[in-house]
Amino acid sequence: MKLSFSSRLSTLRHQKQSVLCVGLDPDPDRIPTHLRPHLDLPAAVIQFCSEIISATSDLAIAYKINFAFFEALGDEGIKVMREVLGKIPDHVLTIADAKRGDIGNSASFYARSVFDDLSFDSVTVSPYMGKDSIVPFLSTEGTCAFVLARTSNPGGNDFQLLKCDDQRLFERVADQVGTWSFDTPGEGGLVVGATDIDDMTTLRERHPDMPFLIPGVGAQGGSAEDVMQAAGSGPVLVNSSRAILYASDGPDFAEKAAQAADKTRTILGS
Amino acid sequence: MKLSFSSRLSTLRHQKQSVLCVGLDPDPDRIPTHLRPHLDLPAAVIQFCSEIISATSDLAIAYKINFAFFEALGDEGIKVMREVLGKIPDHVLTIADAKRGDIGNSASFYARSVFDDLSFDSVTVSPYMGKDSIVPFLSTEGTCAFVLARTSNPGGNDFQLLKCDDQRLFERVADQVGTWSFDTPGEGGLVVGATDIDDMTTLRERHPDMPFLIPGVGAQGGSAEDVMQAAGSGPVLVNSSRAILYASDGPDFAEKAAQAADKTRTILGS
Repeated sequence: MKLSFSSRLSTLRHQKQSVLCVGLDPDPDRIPTHLRPHLDLPAAVIQFCSEIISATSDLAIAYKINFAFFEALGDEGIKVMREVLGKIPDHVLTIADAKRGDIGNSASFYARSVFDDLSFDSVTVSPYMGKDSIVPFLSTEGTCAFVLARTSNPGGNDFQLLKCDDQRLFERVADQVGTWSFDTPGEGGLVVGATDIDDMTTLRERHPDMPFLIPGVGAQGGSAEDVMQAAGSGPVLVNSSRAILYASDGPDFAEKAAQAADKTRTILGS
Repeated sequence: MKLSFSSRLSTLRHQKQSVLCVGLDPDPDRIPTHLRPHLDLPAAVIQFCSEIISATSDLAIAYKINFAFFEALGDEGIKVMREVLGKIPDHVLTIADAKRGDIGNSASFYARSVFDDLSFDSVTVSPYMGKDSIVPFLSTEGTCAFVLARTSNPGGNDFQLLKCDDQRLFERVADQVGTWSFDTPGEGGLVVGATDIDDMTTLRERHPDMPFLIPGVGAQGGSAEDVMQAAGSGPVLVNSSRAILYASDGPDFAEKAAQAADKTRTILGS
């Protein structure tokens, strides 16, 4: 039997004294320019991500791969992603940040792609289409499906805060994820933005053991201390992307990324 | 200035006396077995889709490409998709059925990929993350972003029907899409499943001019006559995937697909 995602997370957290997840969002316009004259864009993305990973993999316990930036590479996208995945040390967790959400049959194909073909440890999933769009991502032992609950972007307020019966929509989503993942081989987790600490506290009180993936620290705002207090002692990954990736746009980008990652790791504590 | 998506849709509908969209969901387990001994899977998918397109392109006014089935092909997925797109006659509309939904920055990259790189005419988008996740898909002239409103899968009832203030969630989503797309270069449309006719009628009354993409006729159930009545005279595409693609699993699959497409087109009327 494979270890659960939460168990691996917990072990890594204690070993590395870290909850840091580094988000890999390789934006062609922000990749250090010195990489480009010698390399085409796919090769520059691989080089950039490889150096970021080498410089941060003793500080981070997970890497989150943002599919948007890889799909934008066209035909080469998945191949580039696979090469980048190959640079991540085996013991570090990986998150397919793809925000999938489709009917059962299509969801099964997406799940097969992220877990079987690309061997990710976890994935982000959108809840709008309900149970049959999420359950296929809960059927692989040792993995986790992080369902969008309370997101940190401005539009996160548009629907997620709507009062539905006696709960807000994001609370209802979280409760359903808890129910649907009660007895599945994979775990259900939640994406909970760092921008509203009260909402995070509410979710953690209700779901003490559920893995939380927390974006919104760093470039998107949200204080590390408040976040860690609200996340409590349950399983948690705190993501930072741009503040680490683009700490410098010069030849020292990897060194500066490591410094930014170390600083974030320290502020977050464990 | 480019013609709007709705204008092109309207012209095609009258020319071809059809509202039919054929969904391309090439499931490796259902592709006719006689194609496989001679071809590897990516080549078989291209051959299968090409023959389906040739056999149905005078009956259909749009093709919907389901990203799940192409991404499941791994490294070759986008290349195969591009080849299949190349087989679709220029005048026929294309839908990137990718159900994207991510924060503004990532959404811009996804939008660039579907509209600029792959040259789709439209895309499906998930609303859960709100305005900044949708607006990037409304910024390309001549295109349409179909936002999930009321979906036809079983899980479509889980959140979409929740009563939020004085509306159900899917009605609220539809209203917001109307507001957000009021003055954008691209159009906002809605995905409205064929399984609840009353809900479709409600949406059409409130949004008479918005393009509707209607799945759920055929394999997923829903009567053609009721659907067309509920959709009224506004812009509409009615999708059928499996009932056409897999009308036969023998060497006559394209011929049977054409017969199934013609039957569906006729029942739907125009």
